[in-house]
Amino acid sequence: MSGRIPVSVLGATGTVGQKFVRLLADHPWFEVAAVAASSASAGKRYGDVVRWREPVPIPERIAGLTVQESAPPLPGPIVFGALDAEVAGPIEQAFARAGQYVVTNTRNHRMEADVPLLIPEANLDHLALMDRQRDRGWPGAILANPNCSTAALVLALAPLHQAFGIEKLFVSTMQAVSGAGYPGVASLDIVGNVVPYIGNEEEKIERESRKILGTLGPAGVTPAEFAVSAHTNRVPTIDGHLMTVSVGFRRRVTPDDALAALRAFPANPRVACLPSSPTPPVEVETRMDRPQPRLDLERGRGMAVTVGRVRPCPILDLRLALLGHNTIRGAAGQAVQIAELLVAEGRVDRPA
Amino acid sequence: MSGRIPVSVLGATGTVGQKFVRLLADHPWFEVAAVAASSASAGKRYGDVVRWREPVPIPERIAGLTVQESAPPLPGPIVFGALDAEVAGPIEQAFARAGQYVVTNTRNHRMEADVPLLIPEANLDHLALMDRQRDRGWPGAILANPNCSTAALVLALAPLHQAFGIEKLFVSTMQAVSGAGYPGVASLDIVGNVVPYIGNEEEKIERESRKILGTLGPAGVTPAEFAVSAHTNRVPTIDGHLMTVSVGFRRRVTPDDALAALRAFPANPRVACLPSSPTPPVEVETRMDRPQPRLDLERGRGMAVTVGRVRPCPILDLRLALLGHNTIRGAAGQAVQIAELLVAEGRVDRPA
Amino acid sequence: MSGRIPVSVLGATGTVGQKFVRLLADHPWFEVAAVAASSASAGKRYGDVVRWREPVPIPERIAGLTVQESAPPLPGPIVFGALDAEVAGPIEQAFARAGQYVVTNTRNHRMEADVPLLIPEANLDHLALMDRQRDRGWPGAILANPNCSTAALVLALAPLHQAFGIEKLFVSTMQAVSGAGYPGVASLDIVGNVVPYIGNEEEKIERESRKILGTLGPAGVTPAEFAVSAHTNRVPTIDGHLMTVSVGFRRRVTPDDALAALRAFPANPRVACLPSSPTPPVEVETRMDRPQPRLDLERGRGMAVTVGRVRPCPILDLRLALLGHNTIRGAAGQAVQIAELLVAEGRVDRPA
Amino acid sequence: MSGRIPVSVLGATGTVGQKFVRLLADHPWFEVAAVAASSASAGKRYGDVVRWREPVPIPERIAGLTVQESAPPLPGPIVFGALDAEVAGPIEQAFARAGQYVVTNTRNHRMEADVPLLIPEANLDHLALMDRQRDRGWPGAILANPNCSTAALVLALAPLHQAFGIEKLFVSTMQAVSGAGYPGVASLDIVGNVVPYIGNEEEKIERESRKILGTLGPAGVTPAEFAVSAHTNRVPTIDGHLMTVSVGFRRRVTPDDALAALRAFPANPRVACLPSSPTPPVEVETRMDRPQPRLDLERGRGMAVTVGRVRPCPILDLRLALLGHNTIRGAAGQAVQIAELLVAEGRVDRPA
Repeated sequence: MSGRIPVSVLGATGTVGQKFVRLLADHPWFEVAAVAASSASAGKRYGDVVRWREPVPIPERIAGLTVQESAPPLPGPIVFGALDAEVAGPIEQAFARAGQYVVTNTRNHRMEADVPLLIPEANLDHLALMDRQRDRGWPGAILANPNCSTAALVLALAPLHQAFGIEKLFVSTMQAVSGAGYPGVASLDIVGNVVPYIGNEEEKIERESRKILGTLGPAGVTPAEFAVSAHTNRVPTIDGHLMTVSVGFRRRVTPDDALAALRAFPANPRVACLPSSPTPPVEVETRMDRPQPRLDLERGRGMAVTVGRVRPCPILDLRLALLGHNTIRGAAGQAVQIAELLVAEGRVDRPA
Repeated sequence: MSGRIPVSVLGATGTVGQKFVRLLADHPWFEVAAVAASSASAGKRYGDVVRWREPVPIPERIAGLTVQESAPPLPGPIVFGALDAEVAGPIEQAFARAGQYVVTNTRNHRMEADVPLLIPEANLDHLALMDRQRDRGWPGAILANPNCSTAALVLALAPLHQAFGIEKLFVSTMQAVSGAGYPGVASLDIVGNVVPYIGNEEEKIERESRKILGTLGPAGVTPAEFAVSAHTNRVPTIDGHLMTVSVGFRRRVTPDDALAALRAFPANPRVACLPSSPTPPVEVETRMDRPQPRLDLERGRGMAVTVGRVRPCPILDLRLALLGHNTIRGAAGQAVQIAELLVAEGRVDRPA
Repeated sequence: MSGRIPVSVLGATGTVGQKFVRLLADHPWFEVAAVAASSASAGKRYGDVVRWREPVPIPERIAGLTVQESAPPLPGPIVFGALDAEVAGPIEQAFARAGQYVVTNTRNHRMEADVPLLIPEANLDHLALMDRQRDRGWPGAILANPNCSTAALVLALAPLHQAFGIEKLFVSTMQAVSGAGYPGVASLDIVGNVVPYIGNEEEKIERESRKILGTLGPAGVTPAEFAVSAHTNRVPTIDGHLMTVSVGFRRRVTPDDALAALRAFPANPRVACLPSSPTPPVEVETRMDRPQPRLDLERGRGMAVTVGRVRPCPILDLRLALLGHNTIRGAAGQAVQIAELLVAEGRVDRPA
Repeated sequence: MSGRIPVSVLGATGTVGQKFVRLLADHPWFEVAAVAASSASAGKRYGDVVRWREPVPIPERIAGLTVQESAPPLPGPIVFGALDAEVAGPIEQAFARAGQYVVTNTRNHRMEADVPLLIPEANLDHLALMDRQRDRGWPGAILANPNCSTAALVLALAPLHQAFGIEKLFVSTMQAVSGAGYPGVASLDIVGNVVPYIGNEEEKIERESRKILGTLGPAGVTPAEFAVSAHTNRVPTIDGHLMTVSVGFRRRVTPDDALAALRAFPANPRVACLPSSPTPPVEVETRMDRPQPRLDLERGRGMAVTVGRVRPCPILDLRLALLGHNTIRGAAGQAVQIAELLVAEGRVDRPA
């Protein structure tokens, strides 16, 4: 195992599970020790049961692993969660109860009071929330990454919120089909088309953004007080959630103020040192027709978000467009970075 | 000429020009008597110089017409304008000076104080503005249809503005490539991609919507006083501009109020009688994932707009999605309907 | 029932079933008297259970019908088949046994020796094959339309086969996603992508084309003797199967020979008189970049095929491109035309 | 210049020129010393005039270069050619006359008797053809890479031709829009559509494939004697030319024979040692629905081609599908590999 920390992946045959496998295949700190999936796949060779959809070959060593049942114990201090929400709840809790840290992309526990919902560049201090799960009698814990569109939105706006205090926020998304998993969106519904509806997505954005940018106090997280009005749409792109935003602050903010704040976004060294952390986390574009999924998605290896078209808003302070990679910053990559944080913060021992 | 009114089409070889030719080919009141284009095409057979892109065969009689120069005189009391904005200004004025009515899709004169910018269902009374062009010494006049995204937006919101008075309006568009003409958007820029920028489109929406919904008084049109914040985006669809909207009114408005107003939108009989007028002009959708370009675009033969997802907005009163056909209601179809209005209102004589 | 012939539709909630409902809604000879589907939908209102995907509103009268079980008796002499192949076999046979004519789009019985596989313009005489089903003791019969890509290919090549005798045939298809039904192809597999494989499609083309163009004799149909090499691919279009073809004949054939034969394709008056028959059934294009799905699909209301780029082949006689509408000529429209033939040929009585 | 060989890029602002810049930015042997373009751009900063469309940031050092005129002298022994064919001919000849090696993607000289048309894995020995250009009195020489679809086709078939001798070849392509440059294909022509025509592409495939696989003798290259029938189509993908092929050989060949030959394709060490050479150059896929542009394009960093679906052909010996990256193996990457060959073969000195 070459001195790396063993980890396991739940739901490893799905699209997010595959992204975990890909991102972890060459990870400097982690090594996939087990892949788990439904009983139908358990006992079989991973490479034989996964319908691999990543545009790089399946990592050979992991392809050779035997798929495990999604139940403790699985190897390693960290278990990545990519299960269907329908089944994830009790399974994730079982792992926490068994003493493992579950870093999960699944939505089930995101809004629970003692579960940190993390974008480390934005709310590193919320990590401490995990200690409250000891009150459940769990030696382990559950940590969640946000919904895919929320992750991009909140990371991009965090510098502005920290600098000026968001008061009102309109966001209209144009989200890629990979956000719906596989098979997900039927091609008949989206080729040459746009669908102005994604189930529960608007609620997630409105709810999760206020928790992530909320304030941690003795009684837990007090959600940020801004109002969010979200419109979510599915467009025929493969990866990348692009959004248009109008945002108002507690004080008057000009585009120049905003650009300065975005460019000065402080890189907390406790986060910047993580292998998955991009530099900078928020890229600023001044070309008028950017960001675009095809051209800007891979910035920071999919972990950076790009903000462009920062300009005045006739109603609130600013208008802007932003882009994030929905399956990296918005899913598996975000979870991996959170797991790295557990190591860097000493929650998980590095191998001797 | 079989008892129909002769009309001419300027810029007949372009995409909007072709749409005019198609819509007028079987028109009950009008007959294309001349097609005009640049000097390069003049003197040649229309069917030989047009790169016909409509999904129906080119009308045989019109294909046989000889292309004319874009200068007066051209046959008929009405001349439809589909020229490039770079050259349209003086040409359109020359036709008005020569006594013809120019109903134009080109942007040049839209914001001039004496030029009506018309969506007949929304601002029929603005037609009278044309009489002010006599002060220019013109026996004819120029009448304009709005920008493509503005047309859909304003028609959909007109019932709400009339009922409740719009105060603030956010709109984020997802616009089809046909809106950019031919060759227009390069495929490398849009296949599997979204571009969060369309040149001057946001300004047009903000400016034109307030003129169309403005009040005609003795001194001309006083623009409506609401604030508009527009975000415009290009998506890989062929036809149809889909938009998400948050809107606030002078008084509190619920979704039920809005649905009632949309459904009750009064069909002015002076407009409803026009051959191109759809019934109803604003279709209301209650299926949660509608409207969609692929499924809803052809309603009212492209002249109706569809409004869906009417729901509360956490910041303003309402959120909704709307869809309009950008080359029919948003361009040639709108101009044809305006020309029909000239006939119905007695500005143009019907043939004996 | 206004003097029209009652018909029933099996599998009416699926995509082909919906296309049947749409095509039959305004049919001059037929009227949908019953829609049938799986037990899960039976007993409910059709409009409530169908996930309607046609770009026109669902016909109101049919929306109000109560969904029936897919078992005899259902009203009318003709039952249209759009069931899943997994269940269609015994059900279709039960209707034939019960004395009804099943005109089916499902593949199950296509290759049976006593089942006519029909493209009326190409093999009208094969209709007589249905009489052999009396040997099964069936007062009714099963009649099949071909696979979607086969239908376009064979109709386009029928004039050439009749004139010159096909010997060898290469075909490489580019097929739309609607050919796979709903949800069918996952958008992640096809947005910005091409898949060079469609399950069993190549076998169907090779087998069915030889039956359709075969010779009816006392012992049944002797398949045409040409060899077919098919390559089938899925592309991101919604409707329309485009194909490139190289074809060799029993004698040397030039492009001019072929164009003459295509243009002279005799319209058998027994077929040309049917309401769904297009005139001509095979359209010839000489513009070098045609046919294209977006521009040529609706010819003959989806019942015509378009042939273009007829040019010499360096190996066989000719190269060409052809296009057909996969859900109209390639599915429901073809079945409706076959049913019309049953009426025109006196197999089904017209209402008094 | 850090010990690397200086090179120049002609036509550096176009799409292929940009690909050259990107591929050369981190090249272990070469360093871009000059970028040249039309007079309109000359004298300006490259980063200011290029409309950069690559999905990675423009290399900073190269962005800072001043654009040169496209005329000798330009720095370095090697000049990469990405000019428009309309102007490239005399310019490329001027550089050869001036003593430089022009490795060009432009089509102008490909078929000239003394110009090597190279895919090093397939016809390394043709390199010697360049010496014949001394007869033109040129101290330098022109070397060409093939047309984009030809490059993928020929590399994939080279192992089969070497092993069995191709006799007949049908190919039907599905080509990405990047093959047409920028702006290239209008989005209105290709979104949700397929165009069964690419100007001159079929002729290029038929002609170039026979030269590349031809035999070098004292009198130059004798083209391979097989017949090629090509059908070329444009599909809505960004990168990657996918093709279906039927191929016949001088002797009977089974799929197993072919798979063995593809897998055993000898890696000539003189080619395998080049930095751009992939291992293996021809990847074999046995998954039934592969290769696909989205999943297989990046193999060998765009320099490998992938062959799949090897199966019997009912007419010739084999059917198969193949995929190559049109702007890497089919353009700039191929040219860079040829330039590497010049160095490895001692035609260009390595820096001391």
